Amino acid sequence: MKIALLGCGVVGSEVLRQLAAHADDLTARIGEPLEVVGVAVRRPGVERDAPLAAGLLTTDADALVSRPDVDVVVEVVGGLEPARSWLLAALRRGASVVSANKALLATHGRELRAAAAAGGGDLYYEAAVAGAIPLLRPLRESLAGDRVRAVLGIVNGTTNYILTKMDETGASFAEALAEATELGYAEADPSADLDGYDAAAKAAIIAQLAFHTEVELADVHREGIAHVTAADIAAARDTGCVVKALAIAELAEDRPGVSVRVHPAMIPRSHPLAAVREAFNAVFVEAEAAGDLMFYGRGAGGAPTASAVLGDLVAVARNRRAGHRGLAEAAYADLPVLPVGRTVTRYHVNLDVTDKTGVLAAVAGAFARHDVSINSVRQDGRGDDAQLVLVTHAATDAALSATVAELRGLDVVRSVAGVMRVEGGEP
Amino acid sequence: MKIALLGCGVVGSEVLRQLAAHADDLTARIGEPLEVVGVAVRRPGVERDAPLAAGLLTTDADALVSRPDVDVVVEVVGGLEPARSWLLAALRRGASVVSANKALLATHGRELRAAAAAGGGDLYYEAAVAGAIPLLRPLRESLAGDRVRAVLGIVNGTTNYILTKMDETGASFAEALAEATELGYAEADPSADLDGYDAAAKAAIIAQLAFHTEVELADVHREGIAHVTAADIAAARDTGCVVKALAIAELAEDRPGVSVRVHPAMIPRSHPLAAVREAFNAVFVEAEAAGDLMFYGRGAGGAPTASAVLGDLVAVARNRRAGHRGLAEAAYADLPVLPVGRTVTRYHVNLDVTDKTGVLAAVAGAFARHDVSINSVRQDGRGDDAQLVLVTHAATDAALSATVAELRGLDVVRSVAGVMRVEGGEP
Repeated sequence: MKIALLGCGVVGSEVLRQLAAHADDLTARIGEPLEVVGVAVRRPGVERDAPLAAGLLTTDADALVSRPDVDVVVEVVGGLEPARSWLLAALRRGASVVSANKALLATHGRELRAAAAAGGGDLYYEAAVAGAIPLLRPLRESLAGDRVRAVLGIVNGTTNYILTKMDETGASFAEALAEATELGYAEADPSADLDGYDAAAKAAIIAQLAFHTEVELADVHREGIAHVTAADIAAARDTGCVVKALAIAELAEDRPGVSVRVHPAMIPRSHPLAAVREAFNAVFVEAEAAGDLMFYGRGAGGAPTASAVLGDLVAVARNRRAGHRGLAEAAYADLPVLPVGRTVTRYHVNLDVTDKTGVLAAVAGAFARHDVSINSVRQDGRGDDAQLVLVTHAATDAALSATVAELRGLDVVRSVAGVMRVEGGEP
Repeated sequence: MKIALLGCGVVGSEVLRQLAAHADDLTARIGEPLEVVGVAVRRPGVERDAPLAAGLLTTDADALVSRPDVDVVVEVVGGLEPARSWLLAALRRGASVVSANKALLATHGRELRAAAAAGGGDLYYEAAVAGAIPLLRPLRESLAGDRVRAVLGIVNGTTNYILTKMDETGASFAEALAEATELGYAEADPSADLDGYDAAAKAAIIAQLAFHTEVELADVHREGIAHVTAADIAAARDTGCVVKALAIAELAEDRPGVSVRVHPAMIPRSHPLAAVREAFNAVFVEAEAAGDLMFYGRGAGGAPTASAVLGDLVAVARNRRAGHRGLAEAAYADLPVLPVGRTVTRYHVNLDVTDKTGVLAAVAGAFARHDVSINSVRQDGRGDDAQLVLVTHAATDAALSATVAELRGLDVVRSVAGVMRVEGGEP
């Protein structure tokens, strides 16, 4: 099988190293050798720590993906264009594609899947979500006879590292970010991670597979972690929780539809996701028959990502030798993606109030008027003021937002110090 | 696709319920309906809580598996015979097989795989290991381009429940077993679980897939948990560890070969497997490129096991529609399974000694004579006696056994109170 590689940075170089290191093993598993016939890069003069035979490098990716002898195109360049055009060209002429490009799949997945179906090639992208953790294949295949209710994932190592440090050392967001940057867990411009863009792309891909429904990046509600304070972390601890940045895809209970969102949330410390520390990733799946499942591992890095690419390459090679293409994701369910206002979850609300008779009645009244039921309340006096911490039962985001707006207008409420969703069951 | 079901107990009934409940979904995913055309049982008169159309039940399994219109045989009866004969008959005439039978696959896997290859049908058995947790498919497919170094699994819910209770409540083995029996986590005759037979069958299947080598049940070194005492659990706690019953399959570092074994072991509390509580299962995989991965979920029960069976059924149906069979496990690596004496690991040794000058020198001498290097030692005086706790560096089982034999003969050693392996890295 002849492979064209687009991109030869950290992941691309590692793909070449692993192909070379495991060549005999791979040939035995597949029944024929995997041969790299071209590597497209922007700067061919750069020195690369990768086994690159002479003459393989080219700057002409357009020509490389169009070569009729190329059976599969591996794309590890990232970004939307020109990656999209290259992959469409390859798929349309019947070649297969293995991609690690989450942004591309989350944005143009439908178009790429259609091109693969028309051309008859495979389109695999296990490396696009949670690195080496086998997740897309289990969702697509192992759980094919089950019904997934919800997927909760820690899919961004940078934000998980920062929140772990804030929880374990009491550091502020800025201090934890500085440490993450120093250790290489955060990029020079960390906004794609901190603002949730990276996780949102992964959430879209997960939701598409879990619910057999087209979900694109623009459908995903997204909130970053930059506003999470040390006080939020401490408040979570007080209720037996820990704050995690979650990517969530879940079926609505009361109507046909899915909610797909990315935001910080409190989860109980007893939840398996709570033990996922530092830059590790994990994805928790709630399925009707299988029950609770979790997949854990390294979500990023050259070697883990390249491992996922090689797994996909082996699958493409086996399909090719069997004379057929692998089954692509179906979108037959065609469920609507619900607006965030219809998302139902529980909330932790932290209020600074005046310490007077009638405060609790006024606050409770605001919740009641918007039909938000209160699960627990705790009041701590501090001189003239008091802190009021409420955890609600499940309510819609719209009802909670209206409640918070009314709370801000109450005389007895000095400030709404914190509002955070609570996921993953009762603490 | 026409299905014959062998067995209609807890799992079989649940397979029928899930097939009925998800019929539309399954048809959409596959492109054709799944139809159950016969259900073989021993006692047709028993009442069953399952959607069973009239006339489906039969006591003649031989006739059912031979029916030319049956495309796939689902086997959930368990045991070696007559299950083996039925599945061989089905596979030899070209039908596919989905089985949840770990003992059968671990004992006659080679014969069954050969029959599937000769007949051209598929042989899937995801449900045989760790219930609904997708494990075999990720090992077979997702990590196909990587190299697995070791697999450590908590694959038996009964023993994990007992050890969790001993750790969390200080209960004795007998007390924890009684509680597990009362709650239905342990069977009336729990020996298959307690003595490690159940875990050993799963270890053989895992090792076969992880290392592309034939491993059968008889190759697996097996130790049960009945001798684990409250003192062992307390000793583990003192060194930052927890005792777990592990199924381990690992590549030898110094020679070509694999070690496959089942035994209780201490693992650090910081290890992801340490947080796997009660009857949950989890499998930890150390791969060269992917790094550390873990798969977590419910390892038993009717619904989770049936979910895994349905996942396999969907795979078989998709293969059938694509006009080919799925790729079977290759055993091209053909590595020897090493005898347990050659297994290399670390040991926790607990000695009751006389509290005299020279005791430590005598004990340390015994270790040194067998080339077992000591990592840490702790001595606690108790009047005339003392307790000596040693943790070794990696050593072979043979060297450790010889050391323990010599220790038992030393005047200063009153008794060898405990010897347990330490796995999963430094505490």
